[in-house]
Amino acid sequence: MRPSIAIALDAMGSDLGPEAVVEGAAEASLRPDAPQIALVGDPRQLQKALGRLSHDASKVRIVPAFEVIAPSEEPRRAIEEKKGASICVAARLVAEGECDALVSAGPTGAVTLACAQAFRRLPGVRRAALGAVYPTERRRGEKADPFSLILDVGLTLEASAEDLVAFAIMGSAYARRISKNQRPKVGLLSIGSEPHKGTQSIVQAYRILEKLPEIEFVGNLEGMDIPRGTADVVVTSGFVGNVVLKLLEGIGETVMRLARAASEASLQYQLGLWLLRPAIRRLRQITDWEEYGGVPILGFDKLCIKAHGRSTGRAIRNAIRVAQKAVQSDLVASIQNGLEATTRIQEANTK
Amino acid sequence: MRPSIAIALDAMGSDLGPEAVVEGAAEASLRPDAPQIALVGDPRQLQKALGRLSHDASKVRIVPAFEVIAPSEEPRRAIEEKKGASICVAARLVAEGECDALVSAGPTGAVTLACAQAFRRLPGVRRAALGAVYPTERRRGEKADPFSLILDVGLTLEASAEDLVAFAIMGSAYARRISKNQRPKVGLLSIGSEPHKGTQSIVQAYRILEKLPEIEFVGNLEGMDIPRGTADVVVTSGFVGNVVLKLLEGIGETVMRLARAASEASLQYQLGLWLLRPAIRRLRQITDWEEYGGVPILGFDKLCIKAHGRSTGRAIRNAIRVAQKAVQSDLVASIQNGLEATTRIQEANTK
Repeated sequence: MRPSIAIALDAMGSDLGPEAVVEGAAEASLRPDAPQIALVGDPRQLQKALGRLSHDASKVRIVPAFEVIAPSEEPRRAIEEKKGASICVAARLVAEGECDALVSAGPTGAVTLACAQAFRRLPGVRRAALGAVYPTERRRGEKADPFSLILDVGLTLEASAEDLVAFAIMGSAYARRISKNQRPKVGLLSIGSEPHKGTQSIVQAYRILEKLPEIEFVGNLEGMDIPRGTADVVVTSGFVGNVVLKLLEGIGETVMRLARAASEASLQYQLGLWLLRPAIRRLRQITDWEEYGGVPILGFDKLCIKAHGRSTGRAIRNAIRVAQKAVQSDLVASIQNGLEATTRIQEANTK
Repeated sequence: MRPSIAIALDAMGSDLGPEAVVEGAAEASLRPDAPQIALVGDPRQLQKALGRLSHDASKVRIVPAFEVIAPSEEPRRAIEEKKGASICVAARLVAEGECDALVSAGPTGAVTLACAQAFRRLPGVRRAALGAVYPTERRRGEKADPFSLILDVGLTLEASAEDLVAFAIMGSAYARRISKNQRPKVGLLSIGSEPHKGTQSIVQAYRILEKLPEIEFVGNLEGMDIPRGTADVVVTSGFVGNVVLKLLEGIGETVMRLARAASEASLQYQLGLWLLRPAIRRLRQITDWEEYGGVPILGFDKLCIKAHGRSTGRAIRNAIRVAQKAVQSDLVASIQNGLEATTRIQEANTK
């Protein structure tokens, strides 16, 4: 066993260039409990960026990779053709056991395909899921956390009942381990609370989930339960999750634009908004994705934290912290146990 | 031909009881261009309620119906068993040509089934759609209307490509006729702007829609385009539309609750919110569903305006106005023409 946790960091994936990623790694390396960080990418660029920053050299090493996948490239083809791309090299470091988890700010499609190629899918998982957190009215867990986790948000557009059940188990494990919420409430996003409401996959998933003792299943959720935070884990297909997530982001932007317009329109509004500033600042803080840094790709035997494409150094530092926490808390083993227990229960029920 | 437009009003459907519906009818009857209104329901209750209100007796008549379908009843069974229910009697009045359009605040499932039973589906429509309007940042049309129309919001949970195309045509006709928007922009809700993004139905619908000259197709929308108002008509499956609509409602409620809590927490916030009051009032006004009264059930040879279950008199009056406008502007014929043109183009393309 390696003495400490090691994170493979795809240094070339960010839209802001390798500097932002290197900055995040440098900052992370200075923390007393810093993991080992393998910075994967063009050694000349990385060395130059790193040389300018205060960092702990015993914690950061550079692993060369000479190709980069751009957001404009068709991901499947890019992953096939560019075996030397930073994301592929970084994923292999994890697959081969040199590192424990992967962090990348690269394009979601390419990152997921690199994981699919290098890692193994966990037994019981047909399709991977991308989780995302969003702020809600309710607070939960040890840290009075305002976030709910929603998954999938774009990898598995049309989810079968089995996919939804696997998402519920993976999301529940994530909320337990990362958000320190001992008994996370899991809900299925639907169009009515009754068990027969929703698409066929949802109705079937409901029947399975209500029988699983591992899951604190609260039944079906409706759209209004999303901002309320009725559940800690919202389970849905990748299509719906993606629409919901971008809608939430869009409303935040729209409200900010309207507030700016109101403030410019009248002195009275300007003063009103100024008085509300502390509340608005707090609201911004909890809706700030840089704070939580990245979102998990779940379903593989190794964990990947996908950071935002426009990640700053701070976002990358936080993504590294989430990846480290996931490894320390044995997230993947916890997911695997949940999936195995479900399979046993399902088999017992069908016998 | 009847001298004026006649609206069949299911007087027993509202959660607030027949009084609210009668109030709406009485108010509507006093307008100079009032349509004929057939109030359908328990004659004793309706007579009593009507007698207390100022109304134009030449415009309102009572049509007896002695059964009522409650929101708790399983709609399919209720519609089968209660042929004498107010919604069924009202739908038959329209089907038989005695009235031109139907207005009901009854449970959506029962109202739709009553329509399906009494009316004929238009050629080219496989499944009906329920439209809903919501306020956006952008304004459009002759009336600088802040509303976008989204459909389907719950009737056709899983929509095929053909369903989505029919929704686009019906929504476009509705926006042209009711919102007086000459060239409404129609978008497909998806997870990326590229034509290959989304589920298979969406990708196929995209290919058909971009070839239709009748439709101002703006391509795929993403979640953030919903509050922005990028499109005037947002086309999606009933499942996604329902989640989106309830999410939007839920965010409004959550924001109001947070504002109230902030106001109670500190005098400073209270003053800030007080200064912003005119803006908040305006925001409330445009998000007020009572203002637009009802949403259309589209796809049948007769129009139904479904009013909210908790409709007040004002909401009912507005729903009657929308129904009247739809008849005056020949909405159904416009939809039918759009569908026929599409069928011709599709046939020409496949030849």
